[in-house]
Formats: sequence, C-alpha cells, structure tokens
Amino acid sequence: MTGLPLLHSTVRPEWIDYNGHLSEAFYVLVFGHATDALMTGTGLDSGYRESTRCSLYTVESHIRFLRDVSEGAHLAVRTRVLGAAARKARFQHEMYVVPGPEAEPAPDAAAVATTELLAVHVDQQAGRATEFPESVRRRFTELTEPPPHWAGRSIPAVA
Amino acid sequence: MTGLPLLHSTVRPEWIDYNGHLSEAFYVLVFGHATDALMTGTGLDSGYRESTRCSLYTVESHIRFLRDVSEGAHLAVRTRVLGAAARKARFQHEMYVVPGPEAEPAPDAAAVATTELLAVHVDQQAGRATEFPESVRRRFTELTEPPPHWAGRSIPAVA
Repeated sequence: MTGLPLLHSTVRPEWIDYNGHLSEAFYVLVFGHATDALMTGTGLDSGYRESTRCSLYTVESHIRFLRDVSEGAHLAVRTRVLGAAARKARFQHEMYVVPGPEAEPAPDAAAVATTELLAVHVDQQAGRATEFPESVRRRFTELTEPPPHWAGRSIPAVA
Repeated sequence: MTGLPLLHSTVRPEWIDYNGHLSEAFYVLVFGHATDALMTGTGLDSGYRESTRCSLYTVESHIRFLRDVSEGAHLAVRTRVLGAAARKARFQHEMYVVPGPEAEPAPDAAAVATTELLAVHVDQQAGRATEFPESVRRRFTELTEPPPHWAGRSIPAVA
C-alpha cells in the first residue's frame, strides 16, 4: 500500500472567529481540501470529473474540535480510508498543527481536529449514485486501514 | 416555552464549489451563525462574553448533507435544544431552502442539511469548562425538546 500525502494549509486571518480562534467552517474548508486530495489520489480528479460528469459527494460527516488553532498556524492533514463499497466510501481526516508550512506532525502529536466522512459517487447528469470505476474501487481498497478507537462516534445525550 | 427565531441567510457566489453547489464549509458557516443566534437567545451574547470572558465552544458535530443548494438560494435554519447539563449543551440545526430572504419553511419541507452538536461553556481566561449561569441553564432547559429520529447517528461502516 502506498499511503496518501499530507495536505498542508496555513490559517488565514479571515478564518478567525470572535473568540480569536480558527472558526468551525474553516476546519471544514481545510478538511474539504484533504477530500479533494483524496479524490486526486484515487483517480477521481478534475479530468475524471470533466470527462465522466461523475464526482464524489460528502453526505455525512462527524467532526471533533479538539484544540484551538490560531491565525498563521501551519496545518497538516492526514487522510485514512476506512472502507469502500460499490458506490460509497468512508474515510477520515486528522488535522495537526506543525512547525512549518510543509512539516510533518511529530509521531506523538495530538490532533487539533478530526472528521469521519461518508461520501457517495454521483453521476451528476443522471442525478443519482453510480458505481466507482474498477480502478478507483481498487485504489480505495488498497488504501483501507482499520478504524481508530474514536471512529463511529455519535453526539452523546446530555442531562 | 418560547421557541427560537429562524436564522436566515442567502447563498453567496464565493460559497459555491467546483460541483456548482454550496460547499461543505459554508453549510457549517451558516450553521455557526445559527449557533451564535442560539447563544444570543440563551443569554450567551457578546455583552456576556465580554464581561465574563466565557463563551460556548462547539466540541463535536454530526452533519448530514441531504440536498444540493445553489447560488442565491434563500436559507432558513431552525434550531432545537436537545438537552443541557451544568457545563454543556446538545442542540441541532435544520437548514431549509425557502422562497424569499425572510420566508419560513413549508410545514412539509424537507431539510437540505442537518447538524447535531455538543458544545461546552468555557472560561477563556482559566482555559477550562465552567458552569453556565443559572439563568442560561434555565433558558436551555425551557427550550429542550425530544430528539428527532435522526439524532444520535454515527458514520456507518461500508464494506
């Protein structure tokens, strides 16, 4: 298995909220760029999308916001595939703050946020889910890893 | 119980992704505005935040992206509180496309997206969770409704 490259980003001033920290929406923006990179890494790139009119749509996501992130912070996002079926894929992204724009997270680094996603392969012309090409499905299967302990969570009830 | 007002928004051109639809991050941006409105509606407004240095931080969210949303669409977000404890609250937002900038969703309208959230009341100076003031806790309790059938979901395993 050849893994996926890290996705790097740097926190822009306009991503900061009134609490002085990275705002929820912009964690999701950066995670979205990691999903785009996963698409490129599995053959669902812009050439594929243009020629087939098929794309990958996120239908569900579960996010954990674990630590504050400040303006100018350098981010690295690691992506793991957790499974794929004929028309859908489950994967996750873990976001780390790193010392430089292209740095890797330390082996013992704690994630600042995670997201677990379910996405569906959609034929945009037909307006419905459709099977992945065999090569794409194979690439997802090659990349699949066991889920970490925090996968499969739901929002807990509170008193 | 006096309910919470709807939060309205209109989809801006810069919120549209390469598929021609509202991008994941901007559903979350609009949901964040609904969380701000919930804070105002429960007494956790900007005056409270400035005088106490306390705020409400989202720590976990589960989003369902149910339908595409186009540029210029008018959105209405309905908020429901699902429970509150001494230091945390669980609530949800449902997003609808409506015919005008201040319109209400039809009684039988289908949501275009939903999110369920867990948030913690944080003392920013002390850097830790702290109890809600009694008046805020009471307001959350007054607003609490039973969860809908889709609450408590997790991302399903795929083959």
